Amino acid sequence: MSAITALLNPRSVAVIGASADAGKMTGRPVGYLQKYGFTGEIWPVNPRAETIAGLRCFPDVASLPAAPDAAIVLLGPERAEAAVRDLAAKGCPAAIVLASGYGEANEQGARRQQALKDAAGSMRLLGPNTIGLVNLSDGMMLSATGALEVDGLPKGRISVVSQSGGILGSLLSRAADRGIGFSKLVSTGNEADLDSSDFMEHLVEDPATDVIAVYMEGLRRPDAFRRAARRAAELGKPIVVYKVGRSESGARAATSHTGALAGADRVYDALFRQCGVIRAESFTDLLDIPAALASGRRAAGGRAAILTSTGGAGTLLADNCGLAGIEIPAPDADTTERLATLLNEDPAAIGRNPVDVTLAGLRPDLFRGAIDALLESPAYDAVVVVIGSSALATPDIVAGAIVECQARSDKPVLAYVSPHAPHLVRLLNGQGIPAFATPESCATVLRALRRAPLPPLPEAATPDPALLHGLPPGPLNEAESKALFARCGVAVTREHAVADAAGAAAAARALGGEVVLKVLSRRIAHKSDLGGVRVGLTAEQVPEACATMLAQLCEAGAPEPEGFLVQERVRGGVEMILGFHRDPQLGPVILLGSGGVAAELFQDTALRLLPVSRSDAEAMVAELKAARLLSGFRGAPPADVAALVDAVLAFARMAGAAGERLLEAEINPVFVLPEGQGVRAADGLVVLR
Amino acid sequence: MSAITALLNPRSVAVIGASADAGKMTGRPVGYLQKYGFTGEIWPVNPRAETIAGLRCFPDVASLPAAPDAAIVLLGPERAEAAVRDLAAKGCPAAIVLASGYGEANEQGARRQQALKDAAGSMRLLGPNTIGLVNLSDGMMLSATGALEVDGLPKGRISVVSQSGGILGSLLSRAADRGIGFSKLVSTGNEADLDSSDFMEHLVEDPATDVIAVYMEGLRRPDAFRRAARRAAELGKPIVVYKVGRSESGARAATSHTGALAGADRVYDALFRQCGVIRAESFTDLLDIPAALASGRRAAGGRAAILTSTGGAGTLLADNCGLAGIEIPAPDADTTERLATLLNEDPAAIGRNPVDVTLAGLRPDLFRGAIDALLESPAYDAVVVVIGSSALATPDIVAGAIVECQARSDKPVLAYVSPHAPHLVRLLNGQGIPAFATPESCATVLRALRRAPLPPLPEAATPDPALLHGLPPGPLNEAESKALFARCGVAVTREHAVADAAGAAAAARALGGEVVLKVLSRRIAHKSDLGGVRVGLTAEQVPEACATMLAQLCEAGAPEPEGFLVQERVRGGVEMILGFHRDPQLGPVILLGSGGVAAELFQDTALRLLPVSRSDAEAMVAELKAARLLSGFRGAPPADVAALVDAVLAFARMAGAAGERLLEAEINPVFVLPEGQGVRAADGLVVLR
Repeated sequence: MSAITALLNPRSVAVIGASADAGKMTGRPVGYLQKYGFTGEIWPVNPRAETIAGLRCFPDVASLPAAPDAAIVLLGPERAEAAVRDLAAKGCPAAIVLASGYGEANEQGARRQQALKDAAGSMRLLGPNTIGLVNLSDGMMLSATGALEVDGLPKGRISVVSQSGGILGSLLSRAADRGIGFSKLVSTGNEADLDSSDFMEHLVEDPATDVIAVYMEGLRRPDAFRRAARRAAELGKPIVVYKVGRSESGARAATSHTGALAGADRVYDALFRQCGVIRAESFTDLLDIPAALASGRRAAGGRAAILTSTGGAGTLLADNCGLAGIEIPAPDADTTERLATLLNEDPAAIGRNPVDVTLAGLRPDLFRGAIDALLESPAYDAVVVVIGSSALATPDIVAGAIVECQARSDKPVLAYVSPHAPHLVRLLNGQGIPAFATPESCATVLRALRRAPLPPLPEAATPDPALLHGLPPGPLNEAESKALFARCGVAVTREHAVADAAGAAAAARALGGEVVLKVLSRRIAHKSDLGGVRVGLTAEQVPEACATMLAQLCEAGAPEPEGFLVQERVRGGVEMILGFHRDPQLGPVILLGSGGVAAELFQDTALRLLPVSRSDAEAMVAELKAARLLSGFRGAPPADVAALVDAVLAFARMAGAAGERLLEAEINPVFVLPEGQGVRAADGLVVLR
Repeated sequence: MSAITALLNPRSVAVIGASADAGKMTGRPVGYLQKYGFTGEIWPVNPRAETIAGLRCFPDVASLPAAPDAAIVLLGPERAEAAVRDLAAKGCPAAIVLASGYGEANEQGARRQQALKDAAGSMRLLGPNTIGLVNLSDGMMLSATGALEVDGLPKGRISVVSQSGGILGSLLSRAADRGIGFSKLVSTGNEADLDSSDFMEHLVEDPATDVIAVYMEGLRRPDAFRRAARRAAELGKPIVVYKVGRSESGARAATSHTGALAGADRVYDALFRQCGVIRAESFTDLLDIPAALASGRRAAGGRAAILTSTGGAGTLLADNCGLAGIEIPAPDADTTERLATLLNEDPAAIGRNPVDVTLAGLRPDLFRGAIDALLESPAYDAVVVVIGSSALATPDIVAGAIVECQARSDKPVLAYVSPHAPHLVRLLNGQGIPAFATPESCATVLRALRRAPLPPLPEAATPDPALLHGLPPGPLNEAESKALFARCGVAVTREHAVADAAGAAAAARALGGEVVLKVLSRRIAHKSDLGGVRVGLTAEQVPEACATMLAQLCEAGAPEPEGFLVQERVRGGVEMILGFHRDPQLGPVILLGSGGVAAELFQDTALRLLPVSRSDAEAMVAELKAARLLSGFRGAPPADVAALVDAVLAFARMAGAAGERLLEAEINPVFVLPEGQGVRAADGLVVLR
């Protein structure tokens, strides 16, 4: 039995510091275990009580009849450490510490947290600074959160992992109001030991869990997260993550809240994309998207029909769908004919989407007939029914009709409830129809319901210790950098590194045509700013240009260069940037961006974490606004995108092979030539440690 | 008494087609008038009833004791026209027609709508296809909407104008749930006569209205909308608009829903910006923002303090504020000291924002003290209090403390309610504390609360009939186009239009240095694609270049050109685009954009409707991502932004002076030279009708 299984499905639990006063926070856990029908042993521990809630109470951990499968420690931070030590000594496999005042508080708290971890030894810990966990599927809760006071929390097939306990409570109460059911909910708090990835890895395999919703402040073990996400994708269990730290204020707050380090948010985006995780953009999405996915239905494409008895709300919804990239096409001829016959309407008036059935009123037979017609139409991948105020009087009839029609189809059916009608939302969700109170939610959910392909498994990076052999720490010069790229398969400009003007002239003659002359130096960072680059020289002009260049560099106080680089002049093609850096939290990152000023000015860049698959590289290109430039913009010839994808993969392979010594690398620009002509890395930089 | 006053505050109302059955839709209006305490005369009209709800019922309009101030027509579309004709004949100033089946339905309906309008003569009409209007301030409603069945609709100082009746009902029920009060609500429906701008102009002057919320599908009279918005800005009454038609699906749906024409959504954005209207981005914003503005408080800047007793929700809120551009700065030293003393905490642990008072618990005195400290700090423009689940047990104490502290300050105080707690949201809103259930709402609202400057009054355009004198319809050639720009004050390149190669050579000698040679033609649209542009020629190279150019054009089958244009070659500077077109709905539009491919590829453009003020032109520049290029990007000299602003104004003046004959105009590129050197329009096109 793993520690997490012990926590979620214990046969016996010890409640350390339980109070006989059910009104107190410390009185709640025993009460909740009883209320939700926990069938195992409950062992309250409190030296000042004989019995608690009718159960025998133990004076200390040592006197428990056996090692409990799980324990919840309700003591303050001063006394929790001793309790944890006693539990570990007793042989308990896993314990939860609720108290706050640890790493999230201050330096002293951080030391206290380390001591707590030490006291646990090989016993696994959840917390501290957590509200514990809730297993609604099996009626087992180890928590003191007031959110469990509510009666009738619906059970469902969504499990939740949250670093914040308060947010977990918020999700629980919000979901209950909407009739959205959960299986298991865990708050991981400060993650002194067990972290969100541990629970994700467990829940992915849980037969009672179909969807996992994650509230994330920061990720401690990206590799474990990737493993869990990959496995979830294989099993067809979507993971939906809402992550804070998208703004500087949020990142700062998250760091001080649970001590989680914030990586760059855009790199998290890349991570989620690469492992098929759905990112919730708004807090509401974190309930909306899992609620829709829990229906088990998926949309084959992005075309939705909207059926409405209230024109304004239909328009509002259509507009939001359009913004989200969901198509709202008019019904096909057959469906139009069928609707017109059913509703006794002019086909010209009914052949629109939203399909407005205002005039037909809310006759259940017509309503069912219209939903069936839309669900059976090959023109639609999903149907959204708009519920207007006229449905408030007869909610059961409306809900019943939708449920009945849904059962006859395997397409997703959603409801948008236009007036304030929480009872109707609850009723629909409770009957398996995802129902929403905002048009934005419906649109977001329709997008999330599209069947996602399994993220491709990238080629593993093969470290090559010989690759950097002999290269010094610090920046390499351009020739050294590009030689490294070329060794790994990136096509670079034809060029010669030479020591002096004579060598440069000879190199220019050998290359033929106009050349580019550059100063070669590990120590000059911005060579063109210092006059260290000349473009379009003939071999004859090269010696004088070398002399002028040296004089200018000398005057500018630049360090003595290693020599010159003479290279072919590349004309035409689209300029791009390829880059590599290390995110402090998530690790090595590849960047592809528009060349020139566009990458910086218009933030036209795409990121991926290593390792990168071919489909990742293709997606990076497609994601850029500059993709249009590559496909032949304004009559230009289409660029060699296949060669660019190869270059991204080669560059990523280089970074993987180089290993930990590689700090930064950049090719700027890489020219993407017309189709069939490949790419040329025209300038480059590598920084080693 | 204006027709709108008659509708909103009638002394007598006729209810045409009233039913004695209160359960029927047609039975509702009389019942609502009585329920909400209407004090004037109510005259039901129905030939088949003697009395209705205890009131004398009249057999027809002719037998009414006098002309009613207002009438509501509950008849179907077949009979409504006759009723309207009778009401007009009786001398009624304004009537409401609820029925649908008019312009929104089909061609037949559109004819029916015209007939209805004709029947009304000089009587003003609201509708058809409307749910009527609701005046909660004065207890007067002319509506049959089921939304009025609810008891205890809160009164407030927000008025609503909606083209959709269903949306009005939705807003009413959603607001009621949240304790947000309204003054007047009008649904304008198909706007056969009175439209949303009419009601906005009226409500802006209404002493009971402080904020106007507008749900818009399309605008029929942009000038009336501008007048209303300008007046609202002068009076400090914000207008908040949610407009659909942002996506193609939405625009299509809106057009078929109320027959409103959709202009380009980005032009609406420009319109709203220019007249100080706040655009609600999500449907929820349309309640959230007015609810916050109705407090009458405004934030002097964008710095907010977050006070929380639940760390996770504080982090969530801080992150969303950061995304919305709201700063969450740490408390200043004095405030930190004050909080540390109050809460008996280490200043190092408390000097953060969100200010986390978890450890202090929810003692009302500490809670009040902390809110006061933050409100009194000069570091903050607003305070958001996060309400956690611990507050659910004692909502009155928490709300009371916030209300008490708010009264001691004139800064905005908001509440974010983390658990699902609608009663707490209602309680807070009811006591004047705008309270929200999503972090996005709080962040959006903080941004909207920033005091907005009065939008500047643009110089009126002066039509100059002589300006286009002698110019033919259709496209002008480059020389004619730029001469027009130059006459209106736009600096253009030095250039000469010549008939032949000899003239071109002479012109090149006169200009000196390298020149640009272009073919001159009204009929060649893309001259550079056809070899009609040569850059960097010496005077000696010009004759041969002319010959080659003519040969190429001839070969491409281009029409005979008018001659050549020889112009100075402009080097350096930042390339921009200036454009003019007519939006079919909103009228003449000026566009400023990044030059080259960026305007199209990265959509880096700013739009404004004519007339354009200097501050509009400045804002257009600032709005572009290319603004960074202009301010001296990567060591380049700063560009002459003042000259660019002058050029935008001159271009706008040209468009205003040209009047209706001007269809399109474009300067592409205009070079913005380094500071002090001005701009140069290097190419241009004008299309006249």
